Amino acid sequence: MATSLKQPKVPEAAWKQRIYIIIFEAETPAGKAFDVALLAVIVLSIVVVALESVASIESHFSLILRVLEWVLTFFFTVEYVLRLLCVRRPLRYALSFFGIVDLLSILPSYLGLFISGAGSLLVIRTLRLLRMFRVLKLAQFMVEAQTLVSALKSSRSKIAVFMTAVMTMVVIAGTLMYLIESEAESGFTSIPRAMYWAIVTMTTVGYGDIAPRTAFGQFVAALLMIAGYAIIAVPTGIVSAELVSASKASAVSTRHCPHCTTEGHDPSARYCYRCGERLVADEAEEGPTTSRAGGPQG
Amino acid sequence: MATSLKQPKVPEAAWKQRIYIIIFEAETPAGKAFDVALLAVIVLSIVVVALESVASIESHFSLILRVLEWVLTFFFTVEYVLRLLCVRRPLRYALSFFGIVDLLSILPSYLGLFISGAGSLLVIRTLRLLRMFRVLKLAQFMVEAQTLVSALKSSRSKIAVFMTAVMTMVVIAGTLMYLIESEAESGFTSIPRAMYWAIVTMTTVGYGDIAPRTAFGQFVAALLMIAGYAIIAVPTGIVSAELVSASKASAVSTRHCPHCTTEGHDPSARYCYRCGERLVADEAEEGPTTSRAGGPQG
Amino acid sequence: MATSLKQPKVPEAAWKQRIYIIIFEAETPAGKAFDVALLAVIVLSIVVVALESVASIESHFSLILRVLEWVLTFFFTVEYVLRLLCVRRPLRYALSFFGIVDLLSILPSYLGLFISGAGSLLVIRTLRLLRMFRVLKLAQFMVEAQTLVSALKSSRSKIAVFMTAVMTMVVIAGTLMYLIESEAESGFTSIPRAMYWAIVTMTTVGYGDIAPRTAFGQFVAALLMIAGYAIIAVPTGIVSAELVSASKASAVSTRHCPHCTTEGHDPSARYCYRCGERLVADEAEEGPTTSRAGGPQG
Amino acid sequence: MATSLKQPKVPEAAWKQRIYIIIFEAETPAGKAFDVALLAVIVLSIVVVALESVASIESHFSLILRVLEWVLTFFFTVEYVLRLLCVRRPLRYALSFFGIVDLLSILPSYLGLFISGAGSLLVIRTLRLLRMFRVLKLAQFMVEAQTLVSALKSSRSKIAVFMTAVMTMVVIAGTLMYLIESEAESGFTSIPRAMYWAIVTMTTVGYGDIAPRTAFGQFVAALLMIAGYAIIAVPTGIVSAELVSASKASAVSTRHCPHCTTEGHDPSARYCYRCGERLVADEAEEGPTTSRAGGPQG
Repeated sequence: MATSLKQPKVPEAAWKQRIYIIIFEAETPAGKAFDVALLAVIVLSIVVVALESVASIESHFSLILRVLEWVLTFFFTVEYVLRLLCVRRPLRYALSFFGIVDLLSILPSYLGLFISGAGSLLVIRTLRLLRMFRVLKLAQFMVEAQTLVSALKSSRSKIAVFMTAVMTMVVIAGTLMYLIESEAESGFTSIPRAMYWAIVTMTTVGYGDIAPRTAFGQFVAALLMIAGYAIIAVPTGIVSAELVSASKASAVSTRHCPHCTTEGHDPSARYCYRCGERLVADEAEEGPTTSRAGGPQG
Repeated sequence: MATSLKQPKVPEAAWKQRIYIIIFEAETPAGKAFDVALLAVIVLSIVVVALESVASIESHFSLILRVLEWVLTFFFTVEYVLRLLCVRRPLRYALSFFGIVDLLSILPSYLGLFISGAGSLLVIRTLRLLRMFRVLKLAQFMVEAQTLVSALKSSRSKIAVFMTAVMTMVVIAGTLMYLIESEAESGFTSIPRAMYWAIVTMTTVGYGDIAPRTAFGQFVAALLMIAGYAIIAVPTGIVSAELVSASKASAVSTRHCPHCTTEGHDPSARYCYRCGERLVADEAEEGPTTSRAGGPQG
Repeated sequence: MATSLKQPKVPEAAWKQRIYIIIFEAETPAGKAFDVALLAVIVLSIVVVALESVASIESHFSLILRVLEWVLTFFFTVEYVLRLLCVRRPLRYALSFFGIVDLLSILPSYLGLFISGAGSLLVIRTLRLLRMFRVLKLAQFMVEAQTLVSALKSSRSKIAVFMTAVMTMVVIAGTLMYLIESEAESGFTSIPRAMYWAIVTMTTVGYGDIAPRTAFGQFVAALLMIAGYAIIAVPTGIVSAELVSASKASAVSTRHCPHCTTEGHDPSARYCYRCGERLVADEAEEGPTTSRAGGPQG
Repeated sequence: MATSLKQPKVPEAAWKQRIYIIIFEAETPAGKAFDVALLAVIVLSIVVVALESVASIESHFSLILRVLEWVLTFFFTVEYVLRLLCVRRPLRYALSFFGIVDLLSILPSYLGLFISGAGSLLVIRTLRLLRMFRVLKLAQFMVEAQTLVSALKSSRSKIAVFMTAVMTMVVIAGTLMYLIESEAESGFTSIPRAMYWAIVTMTTVGYGDIAPRTAFGQFVAALLMIAGYAIIAVPTGIVSAELVSASKASAVSTRHCPHCTTEGHDPSARYCYRCGERLVADEAEEGPTTSRAGGPQG
């Protein structure tokens, strides 16, 4: 959104332009500072919400937490209004995901003045933590995040096949365990609960709140565990393979063709794979390579 | 089975042929639509069976669930009859795995009219979920599934060696813990139960329904856990290595230079990186490549 | 041991030689059959021991299990005596690991005649399961097992470094949690128990029999879990990397030098890396390669 | 620190120099022996502290443990004084991390004479276990440790991105579960506790002390588990990819052909696989290689 609004650089009201750059852009020093400060305030607001939920802390530091809550609400309100003011199309921002989250994170405080209990909605503020990913954009993390995301994306269909197999196993194992264990008082009271147990077991979380008690149920559970054990290898293998090939691709990207500037040549390549022009060898290789250059083409 | 029946394309009763193509083939648009619709109905039937098992839902929505059950039974009956009609050798289909599953998924409803309690067999319907793998066949998932399956297959004997070692450890650890903990009231009441515990522990599920209480038992358990921790690396490593070599093989091996026969060209390469000769281009790239072909070699 | 005894093939008593080959050798058909049969009997004996430990089964099938026990004891006794007879140095076999295990697996039955309770030592029979690894030797599994073992061996010192780090973490985390949680009645009653908890947590087994209750304890536990989560990646990565390089090594081994028969040439190699002789190219490469052979050397 | 003090090798009091070399240097035989002995004593002291925390052992072997404690305290005191004496800048050592740990590991015993309860601080001795990493420095482990550390370091920013994503998920999942489950008596009594639960679940530890009871809570938990299951693949993949590329780099990159400068020769290669020219051999291989050098090229 920010990008599309930026392009027609009309010299509007100068202060709007300036605020816009600070609030929405991340590359300028001011924008960077604002984003980091905003993130700190968001983390503080989450800490306040979290502490309010602890009964013993709420009873002792009630006043401080209330004051902090209103200070933060004031800050977030100002920020929200500024965002609305400096954006070209305020409605479009207001209806965007972050626009709604920003509004929801200040509303509960005001609603709490009229409706008791509305304050519990303040937990919505934790969603603002998602802005953290904007801060990540700032820095050197960008490249790494892209590598991870692209590794996950290119193994998307492998992961889909894998997830289908896992979910089929969960449904069948859950149904089977419901039939086996429903008489024993071991928690398999319905098929959805049994499926929940199957997920808890296959992911090796294993709470133990639901656990088979009959010998046959334990046998089936053991089979499911061993299957889960073998299966946990698959997503790991998928991501590993993607990252290995990704790191290999990034390893060769240093050389580029002097003629067409294509990058990504193999270290042993002599000719550009795009235009067939000879590549510049590394210094160490320069001498001997030149002396033999005529060979294969002459 | 579908393939073997298709080959002698005798123009039998035309509607049979048509239904056959819709129900059994997955490549045609109609077949694809049928498969997706069938899958949706199967998932719905599993949801109904699952909800019926929840006491609170069953008591409130008894009528709706009963009606849905009969609608689904009717649909599955029609599908089963159509399958029998349009197939060349109905008996062969009726005795195949999916034929039996299809029959078993409609029988309980009818049996429930005469025998009370037969309705609980409806859970067999979950097995129909296995048809999901037919839908996977449709799409681009095919290639990915094959990569995964072949990676698992080619590491089959490695996984067998690994499983033998794991099972030997389970038997010995289970027996040992039974000897150590049978006096303490910690759940190790028999060797099979102790083996079940060993599997729960080695797979890092760890329910906690059975857990060592004596100091020596906890020591042995800790050793088993660390062994399991080290061992979990093995299947993951096996699958990772297979997938890495699979992705490498599929990435490069197809193209070779017509002049010097060097292999391993990048899919986007136009010239051999060894001798600079033009590579045979893919159709899509033919045009623009030709216009610049003379450049580097002229 | 078998190997060292085999070499001086003195024509001793012929039946001894024959029995020796059947019992100790795994490559002949008779030896193979014997090993598989022995393994089946061992598994059966373990099943009998396991079932005897289940109270409900022991009370109902007491007679059958007792008979089976004596049949198995008789079989194992005959086997033990035959092994002693046909081996060159019976004492050396009797004092070897498997010799002692074989003796211990028959003794308890006989001791049970005189001393009540000695029968519980029958569980030692499970150790005979280790003979399973002899059967693995037979087949194609050998190569796979060696790959796995050598992958683990060559990453031995990496794993040692890793284990040292893990154990240091376990000791420090255990001590810390003992200090934090010893007042709360959450099971951290001594430092060894707290270390046991740390191992249960770091390996992600998580029984829940000991779990932190204080807020600070839960915070430290959360840190330990996240550390464990990050650390579980290390052994997996180590083994993956080893297996990847192992599979790479085995991938190139098909070509060999016609002059010195060295194997393991890179697919792109033109000259033997051992003797410098030209390698035979694959058929497809033969023609064009020859025409340019003079290039680099001329 | 040791390094910086060593450089100006002024012939100070000879015995100081000698003690310094024994205590601080790890490469000399005496230093090596001292380090190993010190490590053994530290492990012994940790065992003593651990046993003292076990009530049943403390009551029976009280005297032995007390004597051992004082012997160890005496040894550590002597070691501490010697370290202070032989070091150039005693204050700098005393204020370094290990200096403070060394002091803290002897103080509690002396304080225990005046203040009852100070003995419980003896657990600080476990921190001395960190000296173990000095012993690792000695041996061949050094290289392996560096490979591991550099693999972790170079994937640092990938792990940071990953951890940010995980912590965001923990905060949001924790808050959500607090809202869903706070009415049910399932342990989600505050947001921090719910976050603790989210960490326990995502790392697949799964104690079960806090577990969702409502159907919706179990559904959200199942989603979190599957996400955690998919996510555990990421750090493993990161480290695997790093180690694969690290092992590749160390395996091949050192040798290159003096004639055509091709790189990537096998460590055992004698001739360039590209041009057949002799490679510069390692010392050990020099002899036999020379005798056959003329063959292929003459």
